[in-house]
Amino acid sequence: MEKKLAELKQRLLEASDLNAAAAVLGWDQAVYMPPGGAASRGRHLATLSKLSQEKATDPAIGKLLDELEPYAASLDPDSDDARFITVSRRNYEKAVKVPPALVGELSQNGAVSYGVWAEARPKNDFAATQPYLEKTLDLSRRLANCFPGYDHIADPLIDFQDYGMKASSIRALFAELREQLVPLVHTVTSQESIDDACLHEHFPENDQKAFGEKVIRAYGYDFHRGRQDKTHHPFATKFGWGDVRITTRFKENDLGEGLFSTLHESGHAMYEQGINPDYEGGSLDGGVSAGVHESQSRLWENLVGRSLPFWEHYYPQLQATFPAQLGRVSLEKFYRAINKVQRSLIRTDADEVTYNLHVMIRFDLEMQLLEGSLAVKDLPEAWHARYESDLGLRAPGDENGVLQDVHWYSGLIGGVFQGYTLGNIMSGLFFSQALQAHPNITEEMRQGQFGTLHGWLKENIYRHGSKYTADELIQRVTGGPLTIAPYMHYLRTKFGALYGV
Amino acid sequence: MEKKLAELKQRLLEASDLNAAAAVLGWDQAVYMPPGGAASRGRHLATLSKLSQEKATDPAIGKLLDELEPYAASLDPDSDDARFITVSRRNYEKAVKVPPALVGELSQNGAVSYGVWAEARPKNDFAATQPYLEKTLDLSRRLANCFPGYDHIADPLIDFQDYGMKASSIRALFAELREQLVPLVHTVTSQESIDDACLHEHFPENDQKAFGEKVIRAYGYDFHRGRQDKTHHPFATKFGWGDVRITTRFKENDLGEGLFSTLHESGHAMYEQGINPDYEGGSLDGGVSAGVHESQSRLWENLVGRSLPFWEHYYPQLQATFPAQLGRVSLEKFYRAINKVQRSLIRTDADEVTYNLHVMIRFDLEMQLLEGSLAVKDLPEAWHARYESDLGLRAPGDENGVLQDVHWYSGLIGGVFQGYTLGNIMSGLFFSQALQAHPNITEEMRQGQFGTLHGWLKENIYRHGSKYTADELIQRVTGGPLTIAPYMHYLRTKFGALYGV
Repeated sequence: MEKKLAELKQRLLEASDLNAAAAVLGWDQAVYMPPGGAASRGRHLATLSKLSQEKATDPAIGKLLDELEPYAASLDPDSDDARFITVSRRNYEKAVKVPPALVGELSQNGAVSYGVWAEARPKNDFAATQPYLEKTLDLSRRLANCFPGYDHIADPLIDFQDYGMKASSIRALFAELREQLVPLVHTVTSQESIDDACLHEHFPENDQKAFGEKVIRAYGYDFHRGRQDKTHHPFATKFGWGDVRITTRFKENDLGEGLFSTLHESGHAMYEQGINPDYEGGSLDGGVSAGVHESQSRLWENLVGRSLPFWEHYYPQLQATFPAQLGRVSLEKFYRAINKVQRSLIRTDADEVTYNLHVMIRFDLEMQLLEGSLAVKDLPEAWHARYESDLGLRAPGDENGVLQDVHWYSGLIGGVFQGYTLGNIMSGLFFSQALQAHPNITEEMRQGQFGTLHGWLKENIYRHGSKYTADELIQRVTGGPLTIAPYMHYLRTKFGALYGV
Repeated sequence: MEKKLAELKQRLLEASDLNAAAAVLGWDQAVYMPPGGAASRGRHLATLSKLSQEKATDPAIGKLLDELEPYAASLDPDSDDARFITVSRRNYEKAVKVPPALVGELSQNGAVSYGVWAEARPKNDFAATQPYLEKTLDLSRRLANCFPGYDHIADPLIDFQDYGMKASSIRALFAELREQLVPLVHTVTSQESIDDACLHEHFPENDQKAFGEKVIRAYGYDFHRGRQDKTHHPFATKFGWGDVRITTRFKENDLGEGLFSTLHESGHAMYEQGINPDYEGGSLDGGVSAGVHESQSRLWENLVGRSLPFWEHYYPQLQATFPAQLGRVSLEKFYRAINKVQRSLIRTDADEVTYNLHVMIRFDLEMQLLEGSLAVKDLPEAWHARYESDLGLRAPGDENGVLQDVHWYSGLIGGVFQGYTLGNIMSGLFFSQALQAHPNITEEMRQGQFGTLHGWLKENIYRHGSKYTADELIQRVTGGPLTIAPYMHYLRTKFGALYGV
């Protein structure tokens, strides 16, 4: 049986190696590829994806899984091998339900649609994207329908990103969050606005980069097993346990842009760097869900990186880096500036308090599109209407309206947004657990030390990779199910103090 | 039949896509990969190589080739399709003769051996590499023996790099060259030595880089379809018609190092950029042989880049870039410095006149190793003995002796060195043909213009890719076989003038 298990692992490793190669090609495409490389790069990626899919759905894997069934049953169900077999079976059964032709169509449509969107957005031209988005909606429905028996058509798509979640459970969670968040947004945005002009001086890029890298090195991001490069849209990517990279972008007139994107991506990357190296290239490798992944990026970006204790340590160093720009700006003023709350149009620029409202708008619109209660042609106006009702703002056009996020235009509608808010909720939950276990974490932050926090996250979250589902992980860490209470408590305490309410 | 041909092309394209992906991974490994990435990168590359080999040797390809035989016979033998089928068959028949297990062994041994060498060289420790080199020699022989019926055991290995060449034909050519070269080396190195101290001032790296890139842009290297990065060992690499990259290295106390390596690699890259884009990913894609490839790099590096007309144009610009270092150095002094001839120990640092002696030493030793007349353990002393007899020098140790070149330690002995000298010979041949066709090329060089030369090379060499064999290409361009006469004429004229002999 050990031999069969080894064969299963070897087969899955080959598929994983092809995916890792594709990840390198994707990184290069976003970071260094010359313009002329686009055409052949698309073909290379399609070939790698097709072959990886063939490997992952090879009937030999199904046969091995069947043969390993009694063996798995004989193991400790919490052992790595038992979990490996369980997760492998889940992945395999999902993968074989999607016809290769549909996988190809999804991938091709995604690539074409992305290209159309990238041209259409600066021209404010939603109409150009509409037929591709309609195709995307059709393909997304067809993908969902490969998994009959769902309660809601979005469920299979949500399941890809946040296994265990459903439209109904997310709606319930989001409704509860919304009920508490809306009054908080209202209270905070009724106060005097914070002046954040100090973040919009001129900050030379190289100094920003060096400062950000100093911080994430202190966080625990391992540059021996990673690096940071510049790109248009920041991301983290993993090629193996020993090579987890991040990208960032800088604006010389906006200090927050580069710094907080670096802190954010370092959170994703530390999660991947912290996974048990024995899992490399197997079914237990990789962060377990979009939500848990986002919880790690948001934790290091916001709960640590926008906290007062953190800046009590780092602000003098930041002032020393930018004496002309920040030398006469007090810590308090700076801390308030990086935590300014305001109703705004762009999700990625949103503060911690309003951010989830942006996500909920997108999630609700996705559901309506998939249900058929909203047509793609009516999407721009539906977008504007929700922004007016939820945030009291209307974008002057679609560029900063429905065209602002790449997700739907990359080829899938459904399941692609809820992870952001799940991540915020979980970041509050996990951080409060870490503080309960180690109250000295706050004092360490005040000294620019993060070893206890990083160690706790590694021990309780990172190292497990995909061994436990998100639900199981939360249960193990907190002894209960996902709850918004610690996150709302965090927001109320922090922003209550900041805005004196 | 067109359908079968399309299927053949599609199958080969998938193998090519995997190779292109491997090339991206190899580039990244040499240029940006963090140290921690090495282990998984090796595995990714091994998987890609294995799958590509499986695709390229799929019996379905043999069947398609058989079925296409009558169709190919019905075509104009010089048509792209006829040539595609011919070259595909040649590649396929070679590939299927090598058992996959041997391919795997070669690749694995190469990776291990390279690692051992990289550690052993700075320690001057040949003994550490000896067992790996013995294994490499054994594997190289086994590889050659997959192709029974050869005249010399090196022939199949030479054939991989320089199709159509054999040990006997190279020996005859090299003997002729040697007969004329040795007296020239003797004459030139008997003259007063040239002072090249002006190349060893301090030249800031960024200025070197900008200057080199200005030159190769003028040459015709297309940065829209390429880029230059820094690496330990310069190389050119192709991911597709639209993405052909080069790497270089700089020494701030040696102006020639970075500049001429940039010009050299741009020659390789312009060749690949100039291939008919319709050939992308097929059997006619890629330069035709190691020799022809090297002829293009050496042509742009030496026959153009170390010529007086070239520097009549560029030297004032170089002086303007480095006024403190070169402002008071005359053009003549600089031109002499970059063409200094001297007996030396290191091939890659050798001048145009002595370079081929270095190559011949390696070629002869390879032959002896393969024939069994030289044992690996006796290689270091054989190396020293040849350097003493041919160049009058003995390296103080093996670091700058038999350990200096990576080639053998990368996992193959045989066929890996002759291309350098074939390239030099061909560079003289091709350049003289271009000048005969367009005598204005020299005057254009004097004005920093290279369009006529680049156009001629593209028309006569680049665009054909692998459509014609090296022999056919030379026949088409010159109307005759490969001859050393133009190359020797070039060397005698240039260095005769430089040394007044």
